Amino acid sequence: MTDAAPLPVYLDCDPGVDDALALAYLLASPAVDLVGVGTVSGNTSAEQAARNALDLLALAGRQDVPVAVGAHDHLTHPYDGGAPHVHGDNGVGGVRLPRSSAEPDPRGAAALLADLARVHEGELRIVAIGPLTNLALALRADPALAGRVAGVTIMGGAALVPGNVTPVAEANVYNDPEAAAEVLAADWDVTLVPLDVTMEHLLTEADRRALLDATAPFPRAVGAVLDHYFDFYVPEFGLRTSPLHDPLAAALAAGGIRADRAVRVPVAVDTTDGPGRGQTIADLRGQRLGPRHHEGARTTVVLSTDAPLAPHLLETILAGFAA
Amino acid sequence: MTDAAPLPVYLDCDPGVDDALALAYLLASPAVDLVGVGTVSGNTSAEQAARNALDLLALAGRQDVPVAVGAHDHLTHPYDGGAPHVHGDNGVGGVRLPRSSAEPDPRGAAALLADLARVHEGELRIVAIGPLTNLALALRADPALAGRVAGVTIMGGAALVPGNVTPVAEANVYNDPEAAAEVLAADWDVTLVPLDVTMEHLLTEADRRALLDATAPFPRAVGAVLDHYFDFYVPEFGLRTSPLHDPLAAALAAGGIRADRAVRVPVAVDTTDGPGRGQTIADLRGQRLGPRHHEGARTTVVLSTDAPLAPHLLETILAGFAA
Repeated sequence: MTDAAPLPVYLDCDPGVDDALALAYLLASPAVDLVGVGTVSGNTSAEQAARNALDLLALAGRQDVPVAVGAHDHLTHPYDGGAPHVHGDNGVGGVRLPRSSAEPDPRGAAALLADLARVHEGELRIVAIGPLTNLALALRADPALAGRVAGVTIMGGAALVPGNVTPVAEANVYNDPEAAAEVLAADWDVTLVPLDVTMEHLLTEADRRALLDATAPFPRAVGAVLDHYFDFYVPEFGLRTSPLHDPLAAALAAGGIRADRAVRVPVAVDTTDGPGRGQTIADLRGQRLGPRHHEGARTTVVLSTDAPLAPHLLETILAGFAA
Repeated sequence: MTDAAPLPVYLDCDPGVDDALALAYLLASPAVDLVGVGTVSGNTSAEQAARNALDLLALAGRQDVPVAVGAHDHLTHPYDGGAPHVHGDNGVGGVRLPRSSAEPDPRGAAALLADLARVHEGELRIVAIGPLTNLALALRADPALAGRVAGVTIMGGAALVPGNVTPVAEANVYNDPEAAAEVLAADWDVTLVPLDVTMEHLLTEADRRALLDATAPFPRAVGAVLDHYFDFYVPEFGLRTSPLHDPLAAALAAGGIRADRAVRVPVAVDTTDGPGRGQTIADLRGQRLGPRHHEGARTTVVLSTDAPLAPHLLETILAGFAA
């Protein structure tokens, strides 16, 4: 795919069904070297998310990747119990994965991230597909972290489309708006992948079948994990499908798919207790004649991509796990 | 246009360049009987807005329409000085209109509205194209007002497009969010005409020329008033033009143009002091498969119309003032 050295990636996640797909992609992509995983409460608890990540990595034969448990509670409020109606009672669609013998890295997610940022100074890319609590805690512990990473790609927010938790708020940001505000205000380059674009990339039942029909255990498990999630989206799309929220952030970070319409603009997070709590407020005024980037803004909001993700995602996962 | 008796309309406004166009339309439309005008501070002060309304009505030969000065300050904060960069230093693009000898109705806008709602009980339609202070004050004075009017059509808000004052707030709502919240929570049917749809209806320089070339003085004055406003929109649209914000609300109220995509959903107004202040938060989730109205919601958000407004607007004004 590329002759360059693979990109060292730290994945901050809350698997989570679409997190499992993103993890599969990052493991399979030859452009990526997954150097660590931190978990956070969101779709499920940080502890359960770590168990799921360990079990998924074992299925992939990748027990070498450290998995650290991150924040159970959010910066200003406790974990709310997750989204079992979306992600199943265990975060992976109710599927009982074979239990890995591996245990979480004792450092904790924020410390693991800080260590990896030193080891891969100037090269590490953070892919954050859960609430941003761990990133905020790592920045609080050492603001210089921001200068050590190459960039941050975040699945989160909604710019000009409705939210998925409130009329204006997306789940990852809504679950910890204070953390999101701190992460977006930090001195690093952020690529924000909001619902505006993730809701436009769908995995079909045929795609899911292709995963189930794979010979390797990891893609087959991911196909099974998706079953419950496909049901959840029937009222929205009128068919069994899955928007590719987290995999899209992973693929954009890896360069496997590129942004088409994307603008660098100020993005505020609503941390009030009003009806806008958890909204990502991107300043998208004045974009009618073409992209207008704001001087000094560090956040790029992705609004469309140059290709549909599903074919690339499927091809990458099936090829990576056939090898 | 219609065999039915013309609709009695109370116009609450802050002329205002596009207010002048809306006023021209309401006077010219055979479907409308304009029974009163109230003014509010917004584009310019309530006092100046009343002077402009009186002068415009005199040009139209309609000194019989009462014009009452409404709120100078908003519910929780003082008038901020208006938008002279958009509407000129006098609210009508800097054009010096011939001064009418008529003076404002002594009742004040909220009292005029209350009186008209009794005279035209069950039939009065309110068209509100400025900040909603007067309507909120009238409701506070007598909540039963809500049951006496046929409906309220409001130019205001932004649902899934950027605002025009902040990244998420439109000027009329931003100028008095507390009033907008009270008006949208009242027990009456509201048609909200937000930037989502008003920014899609443009008047061209050729249209403006047609107004300037009219024989009647009112359309000619409106053509002149538009000159400054056309310049303001060049950075947004790349040409001299005017979005038809206020005229669209007027034409939808009069039935001269009909909503195409419109959904009845809960709409909250952000009255916090956070970055979302003044935003209209319409719950537009789950509309992908077609319009989904919410049981019990009283606000219909118009997202598109069945025809472009400009031809109908121009034809109505030119025909109405040629007669």
